[in-house]
Amino acid sequence: MERYSTAEATAASAALRKPKLREKTLSMESLNAQVKAVEYAVRGPIVIKAAEIEKIIQQGGKKPFTEVIKANIGDAHAMGQQPITFLRQVVALCTFPELMDSPSFPEDAKWRARRILQGCGGQSIGAYSSSEGVQCIREDIAAYIEQRDQGVPANCNNIFLSTGASDGIMSILKLLVSGEGRNRTGVMIPIPQYPLYSAAIAELGAVQINYYLDEDNCWALDVNELHRSYQAAKQHCQPRVLCIINPGNPTGQVQSKKCIEDVLHFAYEENLFVMADEVYQENVYAPDCQFHSFKKVLYEMGPEYFNGVELASFHSTSKGYTGECGFRGGFMEIINLDPEVKAQLVKLLSVRLCPPVSGQAAMDVIVNPPRPDEPSYTQFHKEKAAVLGALADKAKLTEQILNAVPGIKCNPVQGAMYAFPQIFIPPKAVEEAKALGMQPDMLYCLRLLEETGICVVPGSGFGQREGTYHFRMTILPSHEKLKVLLEKVRDFHVRFLKEYTDLQDSQCSVPA
Amino acid sequence: MERYSTAEATAASAALRKPKLREKTLSMESLNAQVKAVEYAVRGPIVIKAAEIEKIIQQGGKKPFTEVIKANIGDAHAMGQQPITFLRQVVALCTFPELMDSPSFPEDAKWRARRILQGCGGQSIGAYSSSEGVQCIREDIAAYIEQRDQGVPANCNNIFLSTGASDGIMSILKLLVSGEGRNRTGVMIPIPQYPLYSAAIAELGAVQINYYLDEDNCWALDVNELHRSYQAAKQHCQPRVLCIINPGNPTGQVQSKKCIEDVLHFAYEENLFVMADEVYQENVYAPDCQFHSFKKVLYEMGPEYFNGVELASFHSTSKGYTGECGFRGGFMEIINLDPEVKAQLVKLLSVRLCPPVSGQAAMDVIVNPPRPDEPSYTQFHKEKAAVLGALADKAKLTEQILNAVPGIKCNPVQGAMYAFPQIFIPPKAVEEAKALGMQPDMLYCLRLLEETGICVVPGSGFGQREGTYHFRMTILPSHEKLKVLLEKVRDFHVRFLKEYTDLQDSQCSVPA
Repeated sequence: MERYSTAEATAASAALRKPKLREKTLSMESLNAQVKAVEYAVRGPIVIKAAEIEKIIQQGGKKPFTEVIKANIGDAHAMGQQPITFLRQVVALCTFPELMDSPSFPEDAKWRARRILQGCGGQSIGAYSSSEGVQCIREDIAAYIEQRDQGVPANCNNIFLSTGASDGIMSILKLLVSGEGRNRTGVMIPIPQYPLYSAAIAELGAVQINYYLDEDNCWALDVNELHRSYQAAKQHCQPRVLCIINPGNPTGQVQSKKCIEDVLHFAYEENLFVMADEVYQENVYAPDCQFHSFKKVLYEMGPEYFNGVELASFHSTSKGYTGECGFRGGFMEIINLDPEVKAQLVKLLSVRLCPPVSGQAAMDVIVNPPRPDEPSYTQFHKEKAAVLGALADKAKLTEQILNAVPGIKCNPVQGAMYAFPQIFIPPKAVEEAKALGMQPDMLYCLRLLEETGICVVPGSGFGQREGTYHFRMTILPSHEKLKVLLEKVRDFHVRFLKEYTDLQDSQCSVPA
Repeated sequence: MERYSTAEATAASAALRKPKLREKTLSMESLNAQVKAVEYAVRGPIVIKAAEIEKIIQQGGKKPFTEVIKANIGDAHAMGQQPITFLRQVVALCTFPELMDSPSFPEDAKWRARRILQGCGGQSIGAYSSSEGVQCIREDIAAYIEQRDQGVPANCNNIFLSTGASDGIMSILKLLVSGEGRNRTGVMIPIPQYPLYSAAIAELGAVQINYYLDEDNCWALDVNELHRSYQAAKQHCQPRVLCIINPGNPTGQVQSKKCIEDVLHFAYEENLFVMADEVYQENVYAPDCQFHSFKKVLYEMGPEYFNGVELASFHSTSKGYTGECGFRGGFMEIINLDPEVKAQLVKLLSVRLCPPVSGQAAMDVIVNPPRPDEPSYTQFHKEKAAVLGALADKAKLTEQILNAVPGIKCNPVQGAMYAFPQIFIPPKAVEEAKALGMQPDMLYCLRLLEETGICVVPGSGFGQREGTYHFRMTILPSHEKLKVLLEKVRDFHVRFLKEYTDLQDSQCSVPA
């Protein structure tokens, strides 16, 4: 009793001495719950930790390595990839048209820049474009799609430029979310997924429906799993959207034409709006794989399908062979959208005015590259082939080195920019992680970062089958650096297994 | 009965001939209701109509004018304003660093570009920046704010680059929206307002709380009106945010220091999060007016206020003297944000990866312009003064010509880029509009567009007191073109009044 009174008196006198800390209007309690629910592992805690370690090294602190290698994010230029000269020439000409007089810029770059500027208000990339994007760029994109899809018609009125692909994906999802309780929109996403999807679903308060990719079958999409997942979800929400990532992120698979047909047939039968994330359409490395656009496959299924399925496809300047992430360029093509809904989409986009015009210009170069009769053709194709060739080599190297490590199993990197190996984590390490309140693969990746300076993202940030563990790493570092990275991963993994595995339970292979 | 059967048979045979039109997954019925509720007049129906008319003229169609003059949107370059040379030089150098060797680029531009590139991953603006923005640009912004606010401290950790100011405003509002029913977040916005605010509030499902600016007092903000509006709103929601636009859009007023103090005192007392839209901070024309940042005024009110009020301020590359809308550059400074909430903000921003890096570079030039000892100083300041001087002239011209028209009353354009005149619309025209199911000022603006080619936005798109009518026009066309535009408005207005006013009710002045 006495002690209680003393404590009270102490508190009261402290309150007198110091004004009470004002309560925040915006606190963790009052914060938008949907924002709180958002997670985005690609820039999550592991990346924050990596930045801290980088700072320590910069300030002369001691670490068992001299640099942090960031294999967490598909950021090609940050990993030393050089920009495509022609693309930068066109954007520089658009930015500073006085360069049109410079003899050091090729005529085909000038011609493109002039054409883009003619499509801009006041012939300046400093003017807002229309919310859908610069008209002539939309036309170039439509022409590109027609060529890519061997003549399947594309209409520029269905093309919308965007601020990277993420912005387009977010806008379309925003349209689609409605209903309450069992009528709330459910969005089917692959597991593992690129966490933009789960983040957007959380932010919009939609219902996430997981369908699992088949790891034992090179991460293929099995339509039976779509059926299972859809039927289970119908019990508690209204599945209305089917998201596909092809080539896959983080899983690197390239879908076969047959598989795409099955998926589209399923979407048609169940009246699902299909969102096809095709930002890695240029990134196909496996010789037996080929990119098939969802739109082309839909077309070949006949008019009932081609006129029936609502389909949005997304593309970006950030990936492919250009890797121009910083420009935030992208576009989406949407077919079979209800015309009134399209007007609503334009209205929604118009509130944010327009996508960055220099990003639109960068996109234009990608869809309208130098032609064989133009002066920049040779250099452009040499640069493009060098980037894609190196990526194909690195995809192979990654798979090879990782699969030689006991306790790591890596599917072939058929496309995109990532490997998503399964890693065996010994039960003792799993227990330790659980005691620390973290995912086992987070413990693994944190240890990897702290001991080797390699920054990769735990599989739990992308989703994985219960009891399996993975990490995602990019194949973007230079060949030499990637080799060092993979060897460090190998040595770390062996050490890690040894540390956590007793002699008697020396099982260290990944479960089949 | 017989007829019914025939109808049935016809329908059945039609169904056989033609497959039934498939129901859309995404229809007006299933569309997100919050998206449906969004309105954005600046690019609304009147602008769509203007684009149609432009197309008709291009295709050789006959109209009583030869061009559409778009005074609907603050898009300086589209109206012929030339870019600031130095800004474009820096961005071009960042885009195509080979230009560093060119003798035609000044050293101070090269120095800035080098510094920006050193802050970029792989020294490329094609790399993602951190979600908060390029670090050295954040530092430059902090230094700029300290100088602008005569020494009030600014911390670069409180600075976040954004995709135009709109993106920053949307992100902060998103954090703040929570609660249900009477606990739902209420957002106080000025009426008239820039419709980004009402659009964002609708999209996020928050509650819009109107406070009216005092048209009879040069659109000043009266703190008594804030009290009234707050108290009324408390009955049905939880007011948590106070939005201010200074200098005003669409109203062009510049707030006095005393007025800002009153507002901040009110926000402090009522625990409101203050969002200060200060994108027109460079656009002050009236000789007796001066821009005072909300932050500086808060600082001068003493530490209890400066440490107590959560304040976000927004700026942009799109306005000021640069008018670089297409780059989508902007930033926000947020003070007193709860550290945990700040981490949540960074997480939210990271899902969209980063703002466009070329827009960030453009922002850097604005906050770090050539110094007196640098080679580009003279030209830069000449260009800047020319733009701002011309805007000041046009602000005056607009007010003068409009106020000479019977039935139009225009407050002085003290700042920003817009006039928002009140127009008298005769009762007969009001009736006609109502019969057509449109706002009277929409009828007025549509007629103005169709008869003169001038595109302005009806006041109803910004909000106005019941029974008053306005339009918003920019002062961005060249002096010559603006004069023609204003004279056309004058002649149109006189004709319009004549047409709708009987001799007996010739009252045509704006109600006091």
